[in-house]
Amino acid sequence: MNISQRYQLSLALLTDMYQLTMAQGYWKKGMAEQEAVFHLYFRNNPFKGGYTVCAGLADAIDLLLHFRFTEEDLAYLRSLKGSQNQQLFEEGFLDHLRQLSFSCDVDAVPEGTVIFPNEPLLRIKGPILQCQLLETPLLTILNFQTLIATKAARVVDAAQGDNVLEFGMRRAQGPDGALSAARAAFIGGVGATSNMLAGQLFNIPVKGTHAHSWVMSFDQEQEAFSAYADVFPHDSVFLVDTYNTLEGIRKAIEVAQKMRENGQELKGIRLDSGDLAYLSIEGRKLLDEAGFPQVSILASNDLDEHLIQSLKLQGARIDTWGIGTKLVTAYDQPALGGVYKLAAFRQADGEWEYKLKLSEQLIKVSTPGILQVRRFYKGDVMVGDMIYSEPLQINASSTMVHPNDPTQRKSFARDCVQEDLLVPVFRNGEAVYTSPDLRAIQQRTREQVGRLHETYRRFLNPHIYKVGLEEQLHEMKMNLIIALRKTEQAKES
Amino acid sequence: MNISQRYQLSLALLTDMYQLTMAQGYWKKGMAEQEAVFHLYFRNNPFKGGYTVCAGLADAIDLLLHFRFTEEDLAYLRSLKGSQNQQLFEEGFLDHLRQLSFSCDVDAVPEGTVIFPNEPLLRIKGPILQCQLLETPLLTILNFQTLIATKAARVVDAAQGDNVLEFGMRRAQGPDGALSAARAAFIGGVGATSNMLAGQLFNIPVKGTHAHSWVMSFDQEQEAFSAYADVFPHDSVFLVDTYNTLEGIRKAIEVAQKMRENGQELKGIRLDSGDLAYLSIEGRKLLDEAGFPQVSILASNDLDEHLIQSLKLQGARIDTWGIGTKLVTAYDQPALGGVYKLAAFRQADGEWEYKLKLSEQLIKVSTPGILQVRRFYKGDVMVGDMIYSEPLQINASSTMVHPNDPTQRKSFARDCVQEDLLVPVFRNGEAVYTSPDLRAIQQRTREQVGRLHETYRRFLNPHIYKVGLEEQLHEMKMNLIIALRKTEQAKES
Repeated sequence: MNISQRYQLSLALLTDMYQLTMAQGYWKKGMAEQEAVFHLYFRNNPFKGGYTVCAGLADAIDLLLHFRFTEEDLAYLRSLKGSQNQQLFEEGFLDHLRQLSFSCDVDAVPEGTVIFPNEPLLRIKGPILQCQLLETPLLTILNFQTLIATKAARVVDAAQGDNVLEFGMRRAQGPDGALSAARAAFIGGVGATSNMLAGQLFNIPVKGTHAHSWVMSFDQEQEAFSAYADVFPHDSVFLVDTYNTLEGIRKAIEVAQKMRENGQELKGIRLDSGDLAYLSIEGRKLLDEAGFPQVSILASNDLDEHLIQSLKLQGARIDTWGIGTKLVTAYDQPALGGVYKLAAFRQADGEWEYKLKLSEQLIKVSTPGILQVRRFYKGDVMVGDMIYSEPLQINASSTMVHPNDPTQRKSFARDCVQEDLLVPVFRNGEAVYTSPDLRAIQQRTREQVGRLHETYRRFLNPHIYKVGLEEQLHEMKMNLIIALRKTEQAKES
Repeated sequence: MNISQRYQLSLALLTDMYQLTMAQGYWKKGMAEQEAVFHLYFRNNPFKGGYTVCAGLADAIDLLLHFRFTEEDLAYLRSLKGSQNQQLFEEGFLDHLRQLSFSCDVDAVPEGTVIFPNEPLLRIKGPILQCQLLETPLLTILNFQTLIATKAARVVDAAQGDNVLEFGMRRAQGPDGALSAARAAFIGGVGATSNMLAGQLFNIPVKGTHAHSWVMSFDQEQEAFSAYADVFPHDSVFLVDTYNTLEGIRKAIEVAQKMRENGQELKGIRLDSGDLAYLSIEGRKLLDEAGFPQVSILASNDLDEHLIQSLKLQGARIDTWGIGTKLVTAYDQPALGGVYKLAAFRQADGEWEYKLKLSEQLIKVSTPGILQVRRFYKGDVMVGDMIYSEPLQINASSTMVHPNDPTQRKSFARDCVQEDLLVPVFRNGEAVYTSPDLRAIQQRTREQVGRLHETYRRFLNPHIYKVGLEEQLHEMKMNLIIALRKTEQAKES
């Protein structure tokens, strides 16, 4: 179930106010229908990592499919007053919005694809008024889900094949924060969520057993375990740290022995506090010595990829990792920082004018053009991405320019497999893409991360994946920057 | 418009799976109707700050008012399988859920109230099955909104009366993350949001003018400003940093001069990059020299309370602060960490049994009882809070115990004004509280923060506000801990 189905509302107003004031400006100046191209991209991999995993496209598509202004939306806009108490949005503009029907072309990188800084995740081409209004919701959806899918992929990578569960709902940004996080975490590779509504809406596995309150509602810990085993004879994981963890494990073992007498097997124990390395190693010994080598150990408590890696280095005997706060809030970097920049604007004569946003730092200047990303593979392994502008073409001998050092150029061997990352999603406002189901997207993430050399996957100072601008595009960008800076300097002097 | 109205869904499944497995356990063991008391609280003020501002109660109330399982919810639960492929939730339990109707007593701290660690924001008393199911959604709603209201209050405090606008939608956790953040930020004191849907749903002011793309869609920056002024002659704020900021300000002034010739006045300029101290000071000079002292300067660019404070120290001439990412994600601490703990459980004989969750650290042990918070004021100023258990009573000469040093005791002067923070919200499942409108809540935040001595409001090492346990409650807690630890030690030896 996508965003438009979850909400009882028109989502046309799910945007920043300045998009609407600019929209009125474009309309008033007769520019509303002029074609523009915007790219959505980010400038740095999150978490100081070596890669990013795209997510959120299905929700973005859904939003675009349902993009229309209702009378209620228009009434709200009509009610807004300017500083002279005048109606801020004119009736003619409101009529324009009433008749608006989405008519853009959209190309985007499929969910579960590995992507890198400065590469567009999404490109939208169409009337500038529409592109502008859609900036905020597209960023809201893609920024967050991409961030969380990436975090999840890192956590799953650290877990080296162990199960990873997403438990973070109580720390998310309200209901939809929790739902979007559960969806994106699944894309990133977690096996299940604790969020029942996410399970229902997205058809993903749900997991969970009991909390401290269950134990506390009985007089004795052992009584609580026995009662739980009565209710879930085949699906019990006991939380053993309510009072004293090792003592709790001994009681769990006693109950597991009684279960076995009745032909049942305890599935696992859960540690939620204390020194997880020590407790899991000692717990494993106790369980194994008592004849329960199959009882798994689930651990949670503010875990992330770094703690998992550290616990594994310490020989912790943990089979399943429950990840909450650090995953759903992307705690160490809670925003991706994706941006959405105008890159081309079609003039009255039909010609494209290429646009860029200057910045004092060259690396932050946006790239003009109608961009596409060509990825090169050597065998199965990704070896580099070349950003090019479709009108400038690309060919097998194209060369790309290093983003920070234009004296460095690179081309790829002719036997490299090549692939364009952005695929058509809308043409003239009609959807031409069907999102795969979430399991297929999760599978794509696994394959994509698997095609990265491991040096890009390490957490500390990862190797920087090669992304460059195709040479002609680089030239065009440099010429535009120089021309703009010249104009500025001329005026300053 | 509250959460239940925003969503097209039943929100009964908006909970962690273990709440439902425990619920089946309580039902199966005949404990479902046994009365329990849970408290929702946090252990540390966020952002290393000296106080916290409650928010989210209206949404929590709305959720409780609409708490019921639909046939669709039950069908989903019926579809879940255990490890033996058996139906995980029994039909009898599903019938119980079908007939469930919320019947708890809830007491809570009104939104906009200043609160401190270990004080319950919300207390729920009722059938343990219901209390348990509601843990996750109550935490999701109150954790996040309280976090953001607190962040906003800090930012507004740093701005010392300047306007503060919330601009963060594109970096929030999906649509509802953005909406909840806008609501909570308003409670914390921001003057307006850029989020139009939040404006419509919550009836709060919206603000916004234009982006870089507006400037870039014209050949000349000045042309872009003129065009915008044509469309919004009385409500124009020009974004001046698309190419070169000081040059942009000069162009804004030229346009402002033409506007003045037409009887219009430019409202402001906006800086979104570069050195905001330098640019605002130089910009102010340029504007003043040109005869535009009334044109305001709005600044944005990853600002938070610390940067605002630093910019003010540097003499930056900024009148309005646009705060995005750092506010809506609570970037430096993106989760509050609120918990929900069982504190009392009524036995078959009608007597309350008090409960606590042990921890190796004394400060993390939960507090048993049926808790209320008594706040003492000396004149207008808050001087201390005493947590007490209602069955143990409190009186004018009650003494409280220091949370970390039980040898320190404190009582309050008899002329202190006293107030209990938790107010009745539901009785037997019926709402007995009407949430004030958001403006009144914002006003309450302002008053409450104003009643804190300024040493609690500083950002670096704030003074720690005095919160203690009423003496009898402290004794009860200590006795319970000692008894529980004794039981553990007896078993270990």
